[in-house]
Amino acid sequence: MRLKPAQILVLGFAVVILIGTLLLALPVASKTGRSVGFLNALFTATSATCVTGLVVVDTYTQYSIFGQIIILLLIQIGGLGFMTMATLIFLILGKKITLRERLVMQEALNQLAIAGVVKLARYVIFTTLFFEGVGAFLLSLRFIKIYGFSRGIYAGIFHSVSAFNNSGFDVIGDFSSFTPFVEDPVINIVVMALIIFGGLGFSVICDVFTTRSFHRLSLHSKIVLTMTAILLIFGFIVIYFLEHENPKTLGNLSPFGKIMAAAFQSVTARTAGFNTINQSDMTLSAKYFTMLLMFIGASPGSTGGGVKTSTFFLLMLMIYTAITSREYVEIYNRRIPWDNVFKACVIVVVALLLIFTVSFLLTLTEKADFILILFETVSAFGTVGLSLGITPYLSDVGKVLIIITMFRGRVGPLTVALALATRKKIAPIKYPEEKVLVG
Amino acid sequence: MRLKPAQILVLGFAVVILIGTLLLALPVASKTGRSVGFLNALFTATSATCVTGLVVVDTYTQYSIFGQIIILLLIQIGGLGFMTMATLIFLILGKKITLRERLVMQEALNQLAIAGVVKLARYVIFTTLFFEGVGAFLLSLRFIKIYGFSRGIYAGIFHSVSAFNNSGFDVIGDFSSFTPFVEDPVINIVVMALIIFGGLGFSVICDVFTTRSFHRLSLHSKIVLTMTAILLIFGFIVIYFLEHENPKTLGNLSPFGKIMAAAFQSVTARTAGFNTINQSDMTLSAKYFTMLLMFIGASPGSTGGGVKTSTFFLLMLMIYTAITSREYVEIYNRRIPWDNVFKACVIVVVALLLIFTVSFLLTLTEKADFILILFETVSAFGTVGLSLGITPYLSDVGKVLIIITMFRGRVGPLTVALALATRKKIAPIKYPEEKVLVG
Ligand SMILES: [K+]
Ligand SMILES: [K+]
Repeated sequence: MRLKPAQILVLGFAVVILIGTLLLALPVASKTGRSVGFLNALFTATSATCVTGLVVVDTYTQYSIFGQIIILLLIQIGGLGFMTMATLIFLILGKKITLRERLVMQEALNQLAIAGVVKLARYVIFTTLFFEGVGAFLLSLRFIKIYGFSRGIYAGIFHSVSAFNNSGFDVIGDFSSFTPFVEDPVINIVVMALIIFGGLGFSVICDVFTTRSFHRLSLHSKIVLTMTAILLIFGFIVIYFLEHENPKTLGNLSPFGKIMAAAFQSVTARTAGFNTINQSDMTLSAKYFTMLLMFIGASPGSTGGGVKTSTFFLLMLMIYTAITSREYVEIYNRRIPWDNVFKACVIVVVALLLIFTVSFLLTLTEKADFILILFETVSAFGTVGLSLGITPYLSDVGKVLIIITMFRGRVGPLTVALALATRKKIAPIKYPEEKVLVG
Repeated sequence: MRLKPAQILVLGFAVVILIGTLLLALPVASKTGRSVGFLNALFTATSATCVTGLVVVDTYTQYSIFGQIIILLLIQIGGLGFMTMATLIFLILGKKITLRERLVMQEALNQLAIAGVVKLARYVIFTTLFFEGVGAFLLSLRFIKIYGFSRGIYAGIFHSVSAFNNSGFDVIGDFSSFTPFVEDPVINIVVMALIIFGGLGFSVICDVFTTRSFHRLSLHSKIVLTMTAILLIFGFIVIYFLEHENPKTLGNLSPFGKIMAAAFQSVTARTAGFNTINQSDMTLSAKYFTMLLMFIGASPGSTGGGVKTSTFFLLMLMIYTAITSREYVEIYNRRIPWDNVFKACVIVVVALLLIFTVSFLLTLTEKADFILILFETVSAFGTVGLSLGITPYLSDVGKVLIIITMFRGRVGPLTVALALATRKKIAPIKYPEEKVLVG
């Protein structure tokens, strides 16, 4: 039986998660020397591999250094896509890469053309090492002052890898994430930069570095950069406006600290999942707005999740086209093919159905306020990792539901995209057309 | 300046609401002899004309018989569409109907072809009188036993008109809706029948009565009947399952009462807005599920609201097409044109954006739990009228937001539909196509 590329990818993710689960369930992975249990290990392995960052146990408090390194490896494998890892191995071994393998990689990186996939994979690894290296160096300098030499360097490396892969895992302890460093400029700026670069998608980074002119970028790169800028600035303004007088979050910070914390929230909500302010202390409005950012997420082919910036952009463009009675969806002197717009619609509708179904089931299994359940579900779907605090208190069925959602959130859009890309050209009977009234 | 058909419709609705507001704000419209105030009158007039049924004051307790009759007239005008009323006047006066007037009516009734619009309008009025007449007779028989002769007949007529127009207004008193009659078979069955027929859309009723064979029905009628049946049965089963052990709702009812109450909730959620069980006593899961039913709503060209059964059906069909890698959206041996599917997508995305924006703004203006705010917004958008109880306690800004939402919920999809129907065929420059990565 020959597996389809999408099936290989899904299976690959599942195998990585399973191996991670078995390792994390070992007593030696736990600081106490007692296993965290299969379900908690599965939750952690899924959360790490799908670069989500939701945690049922605190990473630093619960897991030993061995366990933490397993988590970091899962993040790196999940973030880059295990197929890129496979490419690395191929390159190292000097093996020739077959067309079939290229096809699989194309899916892994969500690229449009087969040409240049191997080149891109090489670029991905180089880029990752570059950003993670610089990030680790800068963060280490800062963390050494806080934690001393060895733990400082360790924290620098861990958080740099975690941030660039938009994973949201931290080794600060006590579920605190970066809240102790809410006004620390070095940590804030370095982590935000890593998150943003990691969330752009490698093809965009590559495009920017090789063309160096907005005008000559691909349409995709233009849209991703435009949408990312709009979302970051808009997110910052809204969060600042909503929270600047809230004494539990920004209210008691310095003017500079307020700006930093609002910016960090805007950046992190789009799938990073670290936090410098306690999410459950935010106003209801800010929580709701954060859910929108989490739903949109990062850009395709990146370490981030969500329905993706370009998908949301196409949807807005579609509405603009409809309202202005235009015949085609056009932007930046380019026409977007209809099947491309159609694909964006399908992705968003499927995402909404998934979120509805999972959150509905969670209202049956969990005793918690609606907003907590919805926030948790959107966070899991968008592989964000922010939480209003219910993750550790989820029932066993609830944990399984969130595990499935994280997995679907990471590999789902990929498989939907593939199904649409390989649409069969069979139409045995040409039925007559007939319209249906809508709206 | 020549107004477009859509503009005439929107303006017409606005004028009807304004006249209604002025009449309801009169001291004589109030039982106390003191005006309810402009904002409350505006809210009531909008809710009645848009056949929503959300109420800031109890209809029976607050308004005089004069006020209640104004409300009933607004419901009838709003439900039938004021353009059908205009047709009636034309027919009575024996005037010739111009093409332009036919075009406007076509929009009012959301029909696909101009031919047969006048015939349909005549049919609409006949059908309405027939259903409302039979309903009023049956309900009067029952209400006379409860309220005595004159109030019994009045209640029979009021609730028949209110039910067939899916308005949700009642004259029972104390915001109780039909909760006193949760186990009353006559009231339940008659009201449910009126709601279902009113929510099918006149063209479907007409189609069924003239063809009398499912096979020969139009594709639109087939889809509406299929989806309506699925939603009613599915809704009943889910509500029954969620609530049958809840002592505050179905738990203490007789076995027959449980079935009746679950069926009524399934029927009413799809834009009628009456209730036989207290909505805020339901489980969180049932509230959430009710929101889904409210969002989907009734069928096009009917007295109901929501994104519409056929729209939701096309969306599901679109996903099925995508997942099964089919090339065209097909059902019942017919192919659905792409612009039709596209229209369904636009309607749903615009609806979601509206609901998000309004509920987000309400989190800023109201001090209430998130579920209450979201439920209220979806109810207003779907012109349903169910509430978890915050309507009378809304702030002034909150009332205005809900007024706008009810209005948009009723006329919005219509204008979107029109904008799409009259799409200009201008394409001054043919830009080259370029794809964008999504998902
Ligand atoms: K994350
Ligand atoms: K209603």
